[in-house]
Amino acid sequence: MSKTPIIALVTDFSLNDPYIGIMKGVILEINPNVIIVDLAHDLPKFNINFAAFVLLTSYKYFPKGTIFVCVIDPGVGTKREAIIIKTKNYIFVGPNNGVMSLAALEDGIIEIRKIENKEYMLKRVSYTFHGRDIFSPAAAWISRGVPIETFGRILDRKDFVSIKISKPVIEDGVFVAEALAIDGFGNIITNIRGGDFLKTEKFGYRYCIIVNGKNYFARFARTYGDAQKNETILLIGSHEYVEIAVNMGSAAERLGINIGDKIKIIRLELCKNPKI
Amino acid sequence: MSKTPIIALVTDFSLNDPYIGIMKGVILEINPNVIIVDLAHDLPKFNINFAAFVLLTSYKYFPKGTIFVCVIDPGVGTKREAIIIKTKNYIFVGPNNGVMSLAALEDGIIEIRKIENKEYMLKRVSYTFHGRDIFSPAAAWISRGVPIETFGRILDRKDFVSIKISKPVIEDGVFVAEALAIDGFGNIITNIRGGDFLKTEKFGYRYCIIVNGKNYFARFARTYGDAQKNETILLIGSHEYVEIAVNMGSAAERLGINIGDKIKIIRLELCKNPKI
Amino acid sequence: MSKTPIIALVTDFSLNDPYIGIMKGVILEINPNVIIVDLAHDLPKFNINFAAFVLLTSYKYFPKGTIFVCVIDPGVGTKREAIIIKTKNYIFVGPNNGVMSLAALEDGIIEIRKIENKEYMLKRVSYTFHGRDIFSPAAAWISRGVPIETFGRILDRKDFVSIKISKPVIEDGVFVAEALAIDGFGNIITNIRGGDFLKTEKFGYRYCIIVNGKNYFARFARTYGDAQKNETILLIGSHEYVEIAVNMGSAAERLGINIGDKIKIIRLELCKNPKI
Repeated sequence: MSKTPIIALVTDFSLNDPYIGIMKGVILEINPNVIIVDLAHDLPKFNINFAAFVLLTSYKYFPKGTIFVCVIDPGVGTKREAIIIKTKNYIFVGPNNGVMSLAALEDGIIEIRKIENKEYMLKRVSYTFHGRDIFSPAAAWISRGVPIETFGRILDRKDFVSIKISKPVIEDGVFVAEALAIDGFGNIITNIRGGDFLKTEKFGYRYCIIVNGKNYFARFARTYGDAQKNETILLIGSHEYVEIAVNMGSAAERLGINIGDKIKIIRLELCKNPKI
Repeated sequence: MSKTPIIALVTDFSLNDPYIGIMKGVILEINPNVIIVDLAHDLPKFNINFAAFVLLTSYKYFPKGTIFVCVIDPGVGTKREAIIIKTKNYIFVGPNNGVMSLAALEDGIIEIRKIENKEYMLKRVSYTFHGRDIFSPAAAWISRGVPIETFGRILDRKDFVSIKISKPVIEDGVFVAEALAIDGFGNIITNIRGGDFLKTEKFGYRYCIIVNGKNYFARFARTYGDAQKNETILLIGSHEYVEIAVNMGSAAERLGINIGDKIKIIRLELCKNPKI
Repeated sequence: MSKTPIIALVTDFSLNDPYIGIMKGVILEINPNVIIVDLAHDLPKFNINFAAFVLLTSYKYFPKGTIFVCVIDPGVGTKREAIIIKTKNYIFVGPNNGVMSLAALEDGIIEIRKIENKEYMLKRVSYTFHGRDIFSPAAAWISRGVPIETFGRILDRKDFVSIKISKPVIEDGVFVAEALAIDGFGNIITNIRGGDFLKTEKFGYRYCIIVNGKNYFARFARTYGDAQKNETILLIGSHEYVEIAVNMGSAAERLGINIGDKIKIIRLELCKNPKI
């Protein structure tokens, strides 16, 4: 196999801190023949669920064999394990706190190993930056062909921390959902799967959206540009979840919403006060 | 030709969204032997003129043959075409909305093709993320040597959407200009070409600048450090347009200016209220 | 030696400006066989001390031979020299303003050269963007094997601008320190070396921290996760300086502190008003 290995980084580190750059230095020191890709950085600090969702919606676009290093790690230096997950098509390296669980479970976990072998860590392991001292070195050594058995014992599957995406309650044109993520455009990504929404809903239907006690109107559209400028719309986003968007504007700003907030979406014919 | 091809990305995607990372995954899946460069991201959302200017002032610093992928695409999923522009020295891939027009026209357009051939798109093309589904794959396939004729029909030049940089009105020491861009330092880049300014103006001349009804004094200087700390200056920026700057500070903040705002620059001897 | 050379970039340029991308284009034009790494960007504008500290805490994690290009350069275009520093293990390229001095002095300076030879600059050198016109080209040519003697004369060591990290005053459980840096998590990095702190202090000791006339309690902990959620702690950070942190929160926000502010840390048994 002569293909250059790929290491993709997902962190909640800020781009104006040196932490991401340091991780790259550490990787290149161990394996200069690697392609390092910034998948996403500066994710909401300490928010494991959000990062897990980001990873879930992205990992499959990377070539098979890609090694993902995931450093959303509020428990760094405590007794949470450092782990390597081998899935059907990929390798994930990071803390055992759930951040890699959505993607790994979707792809199919083959084996989970603890990173215990100090030979494959930096000489001095800090209590506060395992992205540098443990995870990046592990990924770099794996990219050089070190088998994952070498790193440590198997993690018992019952000790694997996994998280779940909350499920919306769907009933007859009424969707009680949650804001999973807000992107840089202010698009609000809900936990309603596009496929589930399409079972009963059609492009052009109108809805009222209730967030924090306030009502908003929206039309179900195919894409942003199908709406009037500044119109609020519902659409199936590129991640295949239902998304609330404002054409050429920010839905998050208009709705004053935060990640985790409840969202009620009611088809207009069912809405009590359709004029409000 | 054994040179590694270069794909440079320009987007209005946020760096803490996974969208840019996903595009890189898609490219590497098609062509792992490519150098991906972040030209600029997180540009003002939906602002085609701004991104076109960024591309205009940057493209020529890249090696010949570089493929630019430009995703400022508020019309994604509507009937605006996805296009490939072959210019004298470069390839541009993106939406037909003007974002690539300033750079492409300056370099000299040879041919414009529509991207229509589904063989070179991702299997599922969404309505909302053509950066992932159409533009990145096209760029990656081009980098692998697929000739651009393969992607689709020629776009008639009359259907090519191009934008223009507004021209300042220059008359005898009075410049009625516009803020084309504001950079991260708060430097205000006007639409006055450095060469035009130098025809009549000299280093050391003094000016009053009128923005939104307020007056500011400025000296024409060679560079930031030639001014006093916090002094407002005019200079010819690295992009060769006249720029308003504050040494060690932010001109945009001082002048309270936004992109697109009018700027009147009057040589001081002509200024009505030079003491104000 | 067939190893691909590494060029690492440190700048105060914003990631949504094209300046960093342009520098990469310039480098790749001269040497396409180079690995370009973003060490850190968007550092506090014009803040030479801060960037020098960032470089000091990062450089040693990069492979030997890495070429660092450092563009924190408020004096661009003035008479401050453009220099190349060859140290024991690395090369640093940037302005002679102190930004590279902490790292270079720690690693051990072998030789400093001025960049004077116009053959290794871009054809047109602006007064405002030497990152593009002088530093990036120099780094790229060095990565291609051009010996540093070729670039210009030796800089006399007495003309080398170096800065110093302020030293804390440490006396019997009282530390009068300074905020050297604040990272993206809001962790406050002080100028107290971890080793010096550990000489007298122990994990679990309690302190009052006085900043801008206000008192805060903190415990000395090994890592963030050893604290209660929202607890203020002192710890030895990954850079080996004492850091003030809030578990799952921002210490900088809680203490309302800025870079350069004085910090008094008093072991609790010595604190006059331990109940406040």
